[in-house]
Amino acid sequence: MASPNTFRVGLLGYGTVGAAFAELLPRHADRIERITGLRPELSGVLTRSRGSFDDILESSDLIVELIGGLEPAREYLLAAMRAGKHVVTANKQLLSHHGEELWEEARVRGVQLRFEGAVAGVVPVIRVLQESLAGASIDRVHGIVNGTTNFILTEMARTGSTFADALAEAQRLGYAEADPSDDVSGRDAAAKMAIIARLAFETPVHIDQVRYEGIEHIQPDDLEYARELGLGLKLIGTAERVGLEGLSVAVYPAFLYPGHPLASVNGPFNAVTVESEAITEITMSGPGAGGPQTGSAVLGDVISAMIPPASTPPATESLEMVADVVSAFYLYLEVADEPGVLAQVAQVLAEQGVSVKSVVQKGMRDQARLVMVLHPVLESRFDAAMEQIGALTIMRGPPRAIRVIEEEFV
Amino acid sequence: MASPNTFRVGLLGYGTVGAAFAELLPRHADRIERITGLRPELSGVLTRSRGSFDDILESSDLIVELIGGLEPAREYLLAAMRAGKHVVTANKQLLSHHGEELWEEARVRGVQLRFEGAVAGVVPVIRVLQESLAGASIDRVHGIVNGTTNFILTEMARTGSTFADALAEAQRLGYAEADPSDDVSGRDAAAKMAIIARLAFETPVHIDQVRYEGIEHIQPDDLEYARELGLGLKLIGTAERVGLEGLSVAVYPAFLYPGHPLASVNGPFNAVTVESEAITEITMSGPGAGGPQTGSAVLGDVISAMIPPASTPPATESLEMVADVVSAFYLYLEVADEPGVLAQVAQVLAEQGVSVKSVVQKGMRDQARLVMVLHPVLESRFDAAMEQIGALTIMRGPPRAIRVIEEEFV
Repeated sequence: MASPNTFRVGLLGYGTVGAAFAELLPRHADRIERITGLRPELSGVLTRSRGSFDDILESSDLIVELIGGLEPAREYLLAAMRAGKHVVTANKQLLSHHGEELWEEARVRGVQLRFEGAVAGVVPVIRVLQESLAGASIDRVHGIVNGTTNFILTEMARTGSTFADALAEAQRLGYAEADPSDDVSGRDAAAKMAIIARLAFETPVHIDQVRYEGIEHIQPDDLEYARELGLGLKLIGTAERVGLEGLSVAVYPAFLYPGHPLASVNGPFNAVTVESEAITEITMSGPGAGGPQTGSAVLGDVISAMIPPASTPPATESLEMVADVVSAFYLYLEVADEPGVLAQVAQVLAEQGVSVKSVVQKGMRDQARLVMVLHPVLESRFDAAMEQIGALTIMRGPPRAIRVIEEEFV
Repeated sequence: MASPNTFRVGLLGYGTVGAAFAELLPRHADRIERITGLRPELSGVLTRSRGSFDDILESSDLIVELIGGLEPAREYLLAAMRAGKHVVTANKQLLSHHGEELWEEARVRGVQLRFEGAVAGVVPVIRVLQESLAGASIDRVHGIVNGTTNFILTEMARTGSTFADALAEAQRLGYAEADPSDDVSGRDAAAKMAIIARLAFETPVHIDQVRYEGIEHIQPDDLEYARELGLGLKLIGTAERVGLEGLSVAVYPAFLYPGHPLASVNGPFNAVTVESEAITEITMSGPGAGGPQTGSAVLGDVISAMIPPASTPPATESLEMVADVVSAFYLYLEVADEPGVLAQVAQVLAEQGVSVKSVVQKGMRDQARLVMVLHPVLESRFDAAMEQIGALTIMRGPPRAIRVIEEEFV
């Protein structure tokens, strides 16, 4: 029998996201218990071949739906809410077809229906639209909400390859499915934009009301000429107010000027920009799909349903404050322009275990400038090297150092 | 007397943010009443010269503290929570000094203490750390959390100017205060990183535990050499786990490689990147300061305190779905390489009211390619022009068109 401080989570579906969620939940149970006072546990899993929905519903406080598709997902969610259970789903197709019916049921039953995982994976678009921006009057939303097509377009721009070749590469790397038609046609993005537009503009939007075009017809030529014009290509979802009473929701490939906040979103990442007069604009970006990522979004929803009001929990960790950490550095030296200068500096760096990534040396009359980027090293070692370098007789001014943060993603 | 569905908001402080909040609240009252079922109204405003805190507390359901500084802000917030009222603040100094005391009081009294406006303005860093990522184990946070210094560094990189000149320009444009020392020394960013680190790592962090350096010593030379190395400079706040039991929180100028998610954040904008094994990383960006922006963050907190569990409200708007909108286009034409071709195309565009922003024409044996970027126009007019152009005898292939999204910010 469940202990009184157990929170029972029933899981419907055990595909990529379902399996990731089932793995994340017990791993974070201690942490979640500290935050919420309740210990979450999986009360049952429904797969194609095993489990009974009725049994799982009976033994759960909350139902997570990760089956996908319209039925029986719709029927299961409605049944769970009618039984007074909170529900969490990542089902964009379902919400873009039957969102109004489901949201109404949640209101009538006084339960929470959360769906962060349905749009842009762990990028918190839904929560920000529903909560942070609840008081803002939104003018427009632009989004890159399909990682497959963003990967393909990034690849075409980077290598000059055709759509077909870039798609094959995406399939090889697991960024595109065997049947990619929902992604490359723009229909997957259209479902997500229907949900985003519903929240941003408080207007019911069915996926069939979203105009969409895909990227199948994009030619390498287009990308090449556009680069000459300073433009980059993305599959863009847009939802915008037209005049006072109109709303346009569409998905199409579009060129962006380099200053646009979405222009630097590359590879399989997703990003959404929300524009409003009061706030100017905010942009959120991150991985748009993937089991652990979407599973994390689902887990965030489950935790929120466990403890509705935001609170700052007691400081349960007591990490030690550390001052001596590993950093990479840029180093600027004004030195005498004579033989052996670089060797002396390199010798000091080597003695402290600091290795050099790149060097630029420039002569200027009787002195030279030596500019280096160094590989990461414990800061105390770097400081020791700086002290020794500062004392070298070849120095013509104090050394200047600035940290360098290395590129780590995508 | 207040009607039963009124929610009374007492405002302490009437500076830039306070005045913006006082203006936003009544403007969005209808909308907030639709979402929450309660109508918010200002029950009192405390300024330096007018109002009584005790009277305002007595007549309020929630207290918004925008006085700034440590006292009396601390005493007012504690008194409000002891009286069972929810509180919202944007006071980073107070939270980075006395956060634990205030959060403990909120827990003991069972009230909400919200503070989105204290870090990065309307960029929803606090909510995302507290709610979306409640189940994620965070490895590191990197942030650009001071708009003044980011503006100055962007300006120095763009124009080659000195720190002193760029600071003067920032002051002229209102991005820096008359006394900029808290910003340029890194201390303002340090206060924000203390709050971020507390939430990300569940460890108490006092501002005095945050190592910080400013940007006063940055030389134009550093930026110039760094550009040769492909690097851009930002004032970076960092909070990261060190080993299993350590935490490092610091603020310093650092170079970023162009692929880093913060590398493209320019001007007075703020951005925060959160890294975690499960989610890879998510980045949020937007204006970091400004009365309306921070006022919007405060308003979002007030609405959340009014209706704790997230819900999707009924679709109260009924905007009409619009298909014919205004767009800019890229146009790719394969045409006969003969005199008058550009004139014929330009004539058709002009007849439909489509104006040309830029053209590239390239000859290739017996035909030419004409690539244009067009100014925004109603799509139906553009479609009509495309149909006429497609029918011209000079065409050697079907015309290709792709939308262009124009740069609109900063």
